[in-house]
Amino acid sequence: MIREITSTANPLVKKLRALATSKKARQQSNTFIVEGWRGLSTLLTQNSPHYQIEQLFITPNWVNDPRLPTDLDTILLPNFVFEKISDVKNAQGILGIVRFSTPPFKFSKTAGHYLLLDSIRDPGNLGTLIRSAVGASYDGILLHGDCVDPYNPKVIRATMGTFAFADIWSITTDDLDALLAADYTLGITTGQGGENLYESTFSNKHLLAIGSEAHGICKTLQQRATQHITIPLADTCESLNAAIAGSICMFQIKSH
Amino acid sequence: MIREITSTANPLVKKLRALATSKKARQQSNTFIVEGWRGLSTLLTQNSPHYQIEQLFITPNWVNDPRLPTDLDTILLPNFVFEKISDVKNAQGILGIVRFSTPPFKFSKTAGHYLLLDSIRDPGNLGTLIRSAVGASYDGILLHGDCVDPYNPKVIRATMGTFAFADIWSITTDDLDALLAADYTLGITTGQGGENLYESTFSNKHLLAIGSEAHGICKTLQQRATQHITIPLADTCESLNAAIAGSICMFQIKSH
Repeated sequence: MIREITSTANPLVKKLRALATSKKARQQSNTFIVEGWRGLSTLLTQNSPHYQIEQLFITPNWVNDPRLPTDLDTILLPNFVFEKISDVKNAQGILGIVRFSTPPFKFSKTAGHYLLLDSIRDPGNLGTLIRSAVGASYDGILLHGDCVDPYNPKVIRATMGTFAFADIWSITTDDLDALLAADYTLGITTGQGGENLYESTFSNKHLLAIGSEAHGICKTLQQRATQHITIPLADTCESLNAAIAGSICMFQIKSH
Repeated sequence: MIREITSTANPLVKKLRALATSKKARQQSNTFIVEGWRGLSTLLTQNSPHYQIEQLFITPNWVNDPRLPTDLDTILLPNFVFEKISDVKNAQGILGIVRFSTPPFKFSKTAGHYLLLDSIRDPGNLGTLIRSAVGASYDGILLHGDCVDPYNPKVIRATMGTFAFADIWSITTDDLDALLAADYTLGITTGQGGENLYESTFSNKHLLAIGSEAHGICKTLQQRATQHITIPLADTCESLNAAIAGSICMFQIKSH
């Protein structure tokens, strides 16, 4: 059941544009856009309780593609309309509106590894950190402070489909204090003077905090840190990219 | 000695635009653009034999800045002209034309760690890998196949000033064979079935190869690989971002 839209003035096209560019539009509707077959096919096969594809939008080259589900509301767009919405050069010509639910934050009282991101602003960094956290079998990603919206299309793209397997929560400082009260340790990375990452041991109830690209770790987290971790660096390199530092730490922590 | 340019039609402005957008223009002139104070100040203090600032371009807010060197040809641009050249949102208003020299490829016969990049196309990935390689004290970065130009402004920006400390060479397959003939081992990353990165040992003459984002490691390198390295990943994550995988491996290899 494929419908067709031929004009950029169609309200559905306007809705797509709003979802592509506005965090408010995504939050108010509890929907976001997933562009490209990798992310959509992951959602189709995985049957996530948190994500449901509501509508598919395709260009003409997809019309007879056998991979398309037959039971989904599917809308055909001319290429020039699709390009107005797409966030990508050389778009594949397929995207979906996906409904998300945000269950209340909960955590394991007995063991867990969580990535705690503090005001990460770059969509590529957030998406890459989600991908690495899923790869390293982390139990969840906690967004603290003023992080970029995880449903921003650039974030979703950088996760390369792994967002479907990630538990992502926005948490308050009270949530953080509940974790600490449950004996979670809080490790923050520091340029100098901390424990050498490669010579450290880590508790099995561990929060790894990565600070904002511009301002590092905020005071709230610094005051609560129970472990300072240093990745040994050459003098000629002041710091690593936030996604790199976080990924190196996650994989090292999980390798023991 | 500050000169002033007031029109985008000025030949110097056209030259800047060409350097910002054209690999050919950079290669023919052996110059490239470094934007922002971090990269420029690194070059000014470091006195690199390979990089020399030829001209500075500033916006009015920089005119009386005491950090500016007095012995450099400095050109004042109105903000609207600077914005036409700048590659950045919220530009700082300072950039330089920098001359580079490319010494012939040479390597240590006794010990060395080199990052070998195979057709890395994303400027952010290349710049981030250069930054990590400098941070991990790697001895050089070898570009093989069809890599993005390392003097692309987006690459330079992602290195966060560390390009000034990196030895970067474009190498041929003959150069690679010379390394292997000198008993360098060649490690390539593979999704499954290789040695676990965290349980492996590495020779002190080691090449770490990272493949292109789209196509992985090319046949030429696959055929010559002496070590297959696997970063253990959850089933839900097919692969890591190329810059992440390369950085995790470099730091792990150097941690022993």
